[in-house]
Amino acid sequence: MAPITNGRVLFNAVPTDYPVPGKTTVYDTSASIDLDAVPLNGGILLKVLVLSVDPYMRGRLRETHIESYLPAFQLGEPLNGDGIALVLRSECDGVKAGDHVRGHLPHQEYIIFPDRSALTLIERDPRLSWTTYVGAAGMPGHTAYMAWAEYSKAKKDEVVFVTTGAGPVGSMVIQIAKQQGLKVIASAGSEEKVEFMKSLGADVAFNYKTTDTMQVLKEHGPIDIYWDNVGGDVLDAAMQNAKRFARFIECGMISGYNGGYQPMKHPDLIFGKCLQFHGFLVGYIRPKYIDAFNAEIIPKLAAGELRFTEDVSYGLDKIGDVMLAVQKGTNTGKAVVVVAQE
Amino acid sequence: MAPITNGRVLFNAVPTDYPVPGKTTVYDTSASIDLDAVPLNGGILLKVLVLSVDPYMRGRLRETHIESYLPAFQLGEPLNGDGIALVLRSECDGVKAGDHVRGHLPHQEYIIFPDRSALTLIERDPRLSWTTYVGAAGMPGHTAYMAWAEYSKAKKDEVVFVTTGAGPVGSMVIQIAKQQGLKVIASAGSEEKVEFMKSLGADVAFNYKTTDTMQVLKEHGPIDIYWDNVGGDVLDAAMQNAKRFARFIECGMISGYNGGYQPMKHPDLIFGKCLQFHGFLVGYIRPKYIDAFNAEIIPKLAAGELRFTEDVSYGLDKIGDVMLAVQKGTNTGKAVVVVAQE
Repeated sequence: MAPITNGRVLFNAVPTDYPVPGKTTVYDTSASIDLDAVPLNGGILLKVLVLSVDPYMRGRLRETHIESYLPAFQLGEPLNGDGIALVLRSECDGVKAGDHVRGHLPHQEYIIFPDRSALTLIERDPRLSWTTYVGAAGMPGHTAYMAWAEYSKAKKDEVVFVTTGAGPVGSMVIQIAKQQGLKVIASAGSEEKVEFMKSLGADVAFNYKTTDTMQVLKEHGPIDIYWDNVGGDVLDAAMQNAKRFARFIECGMISGYNGGYQPMKHPDLIFGKCLQFHGFLVGYIRPKYIDAFNAEIIPKLAAGELRFTEDVSYGLDKIGDVMLAVQKGTNTGKAVVVVAQE
Repeated sequence: MAPITNGRVLFNAVPTDYPVPGKTTVYDTSASIDLDAVPLNGGILLKVLVLSVDPYMRGRLRETHIESYLPAFQLGEPLNGDGIALVLRSECDGVKAGDHVRGHLPHQEYIIFPDRSALTLIERDPRLSWTTYVGAAGMPGHTAYMAWAEYSKAKKDEVVFVTTGAGPVGSMVIQIAKQQGLKVIASAGSEEKVEFMKSLGADVAFNYKTTDTMQVLKEHGPIDIYWDNVGGDVLDAAMQNAKRFARFIECGMISGYNGGYQPMKHPDLIFGKCLQFHGFLVGYIRPKYIDAFNAEIIPKLAAGELRFTEDVSYGLDKIGDVMLAVQKGTNTGKAVVVVAQE
């Protein structure tokens, strides 16, 4: 077969605030690949099916010399992130054409991995689509389930405040907390999202753009657990309305991703209220909980007992637009890009 | 016997920054008591022997309407704090004249407690003096030992940074950490204190007034554990030089007690580095650890295997001066006021 285009999304320029599609990232069609003839040298040829677009990716769109918890994307190179791929050819033991793998994949249509060490073989529940395996059944679902299990110390009738409650992580946290008998206060940035959070069982759901978080927490708190996806003023408000020995699960701080993090105004409340703050990266706690997740959560997702929404875009060239939507919160549900059908 | 003076230290005016002896607090001799004739109504008459003066007390010298983790002192009323007293008379079962008690005592020479619920009977190891029972063998010792046991998750060869390392809490933390095989970086505010910390075994001891904390941590870190008695810039520096999954034991933030707390500059490091922050009040963890403390630590203190220093003042009228010294860090060793001999 003749070589075909191997589309890629390249990191082109460091953004100053929000990423700009076509400038921060560009869709490039200059590379090509001969799927039949390309030598694998013992490796695996993958066809990328779906790619996840997540809030944390903004932090990687930076100058290389700036240190952070994840490496910077390389200018001129493809982005990368969580995804699912189909094995087209394999020279690796234990991996064969037709298998599916999850991994941290470059944002390009076809890719050769030198071995299987960075890939995980994965089977799909026939009731779920591959997009869900980078969403509720994948990293965001893992994040919600595993960090809640590890850090929440939740007890029935406690009060939890969940931010970005309509997102893939927050919406799972709401449902897990309700199933465990907690009172749930949840925030998001549109009336549509508020309705979705209510439909998931949130006892108090509000639009943070039109309702003052501090007032809501004063009225419906104080809180025992805070699930933080936001940081900034909202974190300050949560601390001021926390009970003694409240647990703060620090999942992310999207308020600071585009233009800088705000300082924490009242760090003295940490000792004054005996607060417990838990930063984490899901990769470190996954081994402890992955079997329980697969046994407990996947069947509930497949049976509709745990609900989720997805905002699916089609085509690798949409990555830039989707990244911007995720930073602005204009997506509705887990943002996924379908790169190719099988 | 005729009535005698019952000296008291009264909270007289809210300070704007450092407390001012004679203005913030006044020593008052207007009250009197007849020790033989005063009716107890089923209670206990105490003669106060020693009182502890601690950094946290600054936070209670405030307007009553301002909320905080401990109640404000009442204007016109005696201060109160940890202390040891001798029982002069008792109408309570299980408590008799000649017994000794520990409790949260008003700052006055003689006091009647209505019952024994707020007092703990205490026996002294003959090799230790009563002053030590509000220091290394009391609340500060409890704080160091118990919070370390509960939160440090210390492992041999890890690196801990201890602030106010010459104080009663920090000096105990240094010694416990060294006994457990950690590398200890410790800071304090004078050359004399630096020498003391070195004599306790600190691997790196420095004067934060003349040496840049950030540079020390860059050179001798990164750190696995931070024992925070300081807050402010030092907390920021510790966060920037922390390893992934470092534990922050938030014991206090004396940099903010006189004039206001600084914000935390980089709260994003909490999730970026998976930091774990543990606020606590020793009273909540004491029940879990008090037996172990009495079995393990008291004998080591008595035998000189754990060292401590005390800065003892004599006379209830010295309380105001000692409070100021503790806030300014000019005391050398645990600040204790001996109110009376037995």
